[in-house]
Amino acid sequence: MELAQPDMAGVDALIRDRMQSPVAVIPALAEHLIGGSAKRLRPLLTIAAARLSGAQDDSCLKLAAAVEFIHTATLLHDDVVDSSELRRGKVAAHLIWGAPASVLVGDFLFARAFELMVEAGSMQALEILARASRVIAEGEVLQLTRAHDLNLHQDMYLEIIKAKTAELFAAAAEAGAVSAGASPEQCLALRKYGQDLGVAFQLVDDSLDYSGVSKDLGKNPGDDFREGKATLPLLLAVARTRGREDAFWERTINKGDRTDDDFRRARELIIGTGALASTLDAADEYADAAKAALRVLPASPWRDALEGLADFAVSRAA
Amino acid sequence: MELAQPDMAGVDALIRDRMQSPVAVIPALAEHLIGGSAKRLRPLLTIAAARLSGAQDDSCLKLAAAVEFIHTATLLHDDVVDSSELRRGKVAAHLIWGAPASVLVGDFLFARAFELMVEAGSMQALEILARASRVIAEGEVLQLTRAHDLNLHQDMYLEIIKAKTAELFAAAAEAGAVSAGASPEQCLALRKYGQDLGVAFQLVDDSLDYSGVSKDLGKNPGDDFREGKATLPLLLAVARTRGREDAFWERTINKGDRTDDDFRRARELIIGTGALASTLDAADEYADAAKAALRVLPASPWRDALEGLADFAVSRAA
Repeated sequence: MELAQPDMAGVDALIRDRMQSPVAVIPALAEHLIGGSAKRLRPLLTIAAARLSGAQDDSCLKLAAAVEFIHTATLLHDDVVDSSELRRGKVAAHLIWGAPASVLVGDFLFARAFELMVEAGSMQALEILARASRVIAEGEVLQLTRAHDLNLHQDMYLEIIKAKTAELFAAAAEAGAVSAGASPEQCLALRKYGQDLGVAFQLVDDSLDYSGVSKDLGKNPGDDFREGKATLPLLLAVARTRGREDAFWERTINKGDRTDDDFRRARELIIGTGALASTLDAADEYADAAKAALRVLPASPWRDALEGLADFAVSRAA
Repeated sequence: MELAQPDMAGVDALIRDRMQSPVAVIPALAEHLIGGSAKRLRPLLTIAAARLSGAQDDSCLKLAAAVEFIHTATLLHDDVVDSSELRRGKVAAHLIWGAPASVLVGDFLFARAFELMVEAGSMQALEILARASRVIAEGEVLQLTRAHDLNLHQDMYLEIIKAKTAELFAAAAEAGAVSAGASPEQCLALRKYGQDLGVAFQLVDDSLDYSGVSKDLGKNPGDDFREGKATLPLLLAVARTRGREDAFWERTINKGDRTDDDFRRARELIIGTGALASTLDAADEYADAAKAALRVLPASPWRDALEGLADFAVSRAA
């Protein structure tokens, strides 16, 4: 997003400044995860929502950096929870510095996020992001307890990704709008935009786990399958092969007895039954809904940019 | 503390209310850790500091509950980091619900703490507790990287316990005072009281690891030794047996090659060299300094109660 370039450079400088600590492991580990190829999608939402709402000063930069810190903290904890091997195209931090350091540096970044929010000075934005942090944790725990449930209802799956992914997109946009003094209607519209965009983004992510390659994904394809994670492509394929493949899914997902060949077979079933295409259709619908939510906002280059972002989110899968 | 009974009942009710979640694992795990025998020392500091400073309303109860949530979140993460087996006299949560759930429920409680602070409505108290949360994480990481260092300087050990333990005591008291509109001098005095009390408390805790029994401790004696943790009793004993026992410490702490007999021998050396007594002397000095810090405050039953708390903190070791 050309338009956001100067602001995002400022966010980047803030991120680099606030990940510093006299305890050397902290910036080293943070740099590994935050430094490189991160898309900075969530802080971009905060900046765009704030500028679109007429923000004149730079307090939205602090909120945007806080949003990225919250996101990075959850990534660090997630990778420990899931024992993931790759993240953002690099070896996961816990495999280099150990799980304890990943947990504690996650806590550091989370606390830093709240220090930045205090500096930004909007109690309302703070409330939105504190609530989002809590909802994310609830979503992660819910996913943890329901991960291997082949009968997970689609509604429950959506509830999980709304909490663990879309809530931060929603809060990032809403907090930006709120901090700029936008009207309640405008705040709500930007929140809705962020939430629908977040769902679209996660649906694409879940699809790429069966159709992508590591280079684009920044993580290993098949990770979700190897963790026995009940994502939408899998749930749809399970439903569409009921009576035929029950034993296969039971063994590979519920019992956790999986080989690389099993992943290839799962992928064939997920593509062959149209489960992958249906998931991407759903992602398109959410991206359209996100764009529709923007319509109550005044026309502006920032609004156009957010529209473009919704298209980008689903184009990753094309 | 008789005096604080009604307020602390209110804090307890708030804690029980805010640890609820539609995700059932969260209240179950939180109840295990928060429900029972917790001393609630840190929230008590917030209440006493606030009432002593003339707090009329109940917003300090929310801050106090937030302080206990921050503390509990760090305990959950610590026990994962240290692979501890006992906590507050119970099997550590990660051994029942798994490390992933412990990490994520810690995140939940941390986020809830900030939601409670937003409700309490003092941006200044929020700043103090956000900063404390960050300092605690830094202290934990520092301890992690320096844990097995037999040459750890006493000053560095003190820096670690000031960050990982005393900072929350200091912030708990300061936030209570600030939220009640106390003068800067009074806020500073209560912060100093909290910090010195926290150091005394941790020194006693580190001593009890070599002199206590599980029942009083709520954790297994010898845990620090088994983790090769360089605490003050150990560091003093190492220094006082230099030239005689270097190979023993090198093997048991640096190399991590330890038996139960080794723990008994370490305990004998720590007691025999007077390292334990010196640690408890240092704790007494910090408790005295904590009481001295209270002198600038007006005489009141709350001030007396805080004085009594400092005596209690060191009496655990008698």
